[in-house]
Amino acid sequence: MKLLEKTIQEIHPIDRKWIDAASRRQLELTKPPGSLGRLEEIANRCAAIRESFELSASHPRIVLFAADHGVCAEGVSAYPQEVTAQMVLNFLRGGAAINALARSAGIELKVVDIGVATPLPSSNDLIGRRVAPGTRNFCQEPAMTEAETTIALETGIELACDAAIAGCDLLGFGEMGIGNTTSASAIAAALTGQPIAAVVGCGAGADDACMTRKRAAIQRALALHSASLGNPLGILRCVGGFEIAAMCGFCLGAAARRVPVVMDGFIATAAAALAVRLCPASSGYLFASHRSAEPGHAYFLAMLDQEPLLQLGMRLGEGTGATLAMNLIQAAIAAFTGMATFAAAGVSNK
Amino acid sequence: MKLLEKTIQEIHPIDRKWIDAASRRQLELTKPPGSLGRLEEIANRCAAIRESFELSASHPRIVLFAADHGVCAEGVSAYPQEVTAQMVLNFLRGGAAINALARSAGIELKVVDIGVATPLPSSNDLIGRRVAPGTRNFCQEPAMTEAETTIALETGIELACDAAIAGCDLLGFGEMGIGNTTSASAIAAALTGQPIAAVVGCGAGADDACMTRKRAAIQRALALHSASLGNPLGILRCVGGFEIAAMCGFCLGAAARRVPVVMDGFIATAAAALAVRLCPASSGYLFASHRSAEPGHAYFLAMLDQEPLLQLGMRLGEGTGATLAMNLIQAAIAAFTGMATFAAAGVSNK
Repeated sequence: MKLLEKTIQEIHPIDRKWIDAASRRQLELTKPPGSLGRLEEIANRCAAIRESFELSASHPRIVLFAADHGVCAEGVSAYPQEVTAQMVLNFLRGGAAINALARSAGIELKVVDIGVATPLPSSNDLIGRRVAPGTRNFCQEPAMTEAETTIALETGIELACDAAIAGCDLLGFGEMGIGNTTSASAIAAALTGQPIAAVVGCGAGADDACMTRKRAAIQRALALHSASLGNPLGILRCVGGFEIAAMCGFCLGAAARRVPVVMDGFIATAAAALAVRLCPASSGYLFASHRSAEPGHAYFLAMLDQEPLLQLGMRLGEGTGATLAMNLIQAAIAAFTGMATFAAAGVSNK
Repeated sequence: MKLLEKTIQEIHPIDRKWIDAASRRQLELTKPPGSLGRLEEIANRCAAIRESFELSASHPRIVLFAADHGVCAEGVSAYPQEVTAQMVLNFLRGGAAINALARSAGIELKVVDIGVATPLPSSNDLIGRRVAPGTRNFCQEPAMTEAETTIALETGIELACDAAIAGCDLLGFGEMGIGNTTSASAIAAALTGQPIAAVVGCGAGADDACMTRKRAAIQRALALHSASLGNPLGILRCVGGFEIAAMCGFCLGAAARRVPVVMDGFIATAAAALAVRLCPASSGYLFASHRSAEPGHAYFLAMLDQEPLLQLGMRLGEGTGATLAMNLIQAAIAAFTGMATFAAAGVSNK
């Protein structure tokens, strides 16, 4: 697990001194003190991440990781497993919500097959990094082997580093994977200690019978793997998924390269929570985009001490919430870097 | 008051049938039902406003109205009155928060002198429509005459219609005017019946002594003008301001031309509340951008039955909050118009 360990070692906590310096700079700009609210907090944290006031967010990129989940065999999802691959094809044709929102927001989108069960045609627009055709059913055995977990994690690290090398100055991540709210809920229960009932929601639209199967599947999985759930890598391997491992690695890679990185909703935040448990110093690089309608999301956000920028009742995934928050981060940086000072503008200060 | 009356007659309530039809269209798009949350609600309302599914928001414009307030003589503001004109010059040079945020959001910005006290140089970038060099001190006499109120209102209507003729398909409005939170608080007390203490905040940063003067000034004004505060035009004339009247007209003009229109914060919402009181049918065209830190804002929002899209603790004005919400509306429309259907994409529906 060399790349993972090396990456974790490269991550340093953001420096409070930069936040304080940025706060003082905010007072010089032609606005009442504090009047841009959370936009000021965002820009100040970006200054600490970059260790610079020369901030930019002109090359934003979202990476969308798709994978399948063996636990679908338990009847936990409202949609059939084939929908994962069908939606990847929809992403490649530009017809999904994430395509429309990324276009609207001016954000580059990269789609990664990290473990889709159905074979996909090769395409220049698809990053083919399939670890395996879906995870195993975690009600019966660990979702991934140690080797698979490592490959998926390191793929995420590599894709974050690739983005930084390509000049991306703002990153986001999202996912597609039928069944993955079940995995994220299992992670929530294992990581936060909350009861299963509190962290299970309807996902893409599960009915009552489906919800009952979902809770039961998680309960069996947590019992089966109890000896391995004491650490984040054990949780990830036993009840996680390829896209969750890759997103976890993506957070770590972005933090190591000092690039602000925006989580999407419930499943993306599960991955980020595992990253922060693996490396607490990575937390300062993360931004929570929106508060998902999934009940388990709130526990991850509380654990991460993050208040999302948006509350729009979204529960789609794919990175859709991240696109909206990335525009807010761009606005925050635009104000911080583009505004005149009281002195330069000849505006009377208090 | 011909243009005002004619405009009000042209405004029709949005048609619930279009919202229902748009909701049904949303179910065909490749996402779980309702999973885009408030973005779906926004798009559905835009469909009702335009009476079409062929929505666009590719020509967004913010109009920023600047004016001075005679009530500044009562010592109600943290900043000297000269700051209004200084900030207009800052807008023209591109150094204010609204310039940075409008640039970041890709939104055209128009600045209007509707009643600044200090003479301003003529500029191609400034729409000079000064009604008078600031309002009168409403602690002593009505802020505006009836004729002045009408001119300011009709200027707002004209600028909304000009924008519609220019092809703008999404509008926003904001303001700059030292002292105008005092005016907006007086309108809030008069319009919503809330006690003065509940609707007065610190504005751009008033200290305790300043806040005491602000509350006292509003109390004197409401007593002085009590006979005229029974209708929205009386409230506007007695305790309003030129930019508030113009923004009120702007809402009506946008509604008459069936263009979605985004309110900024507390003062902009005061103007919108007066517009809805003048013409209840205009309410369906309005979008609340953000929840201001000013306490009076919540009462206007409740009166308008509007839940803002953003809660970022902003209290700057200028249209800054509107720019952020306009990007969300663009995203909502992009998803509605740009997504594939389940049938077209070959994605299995539930």
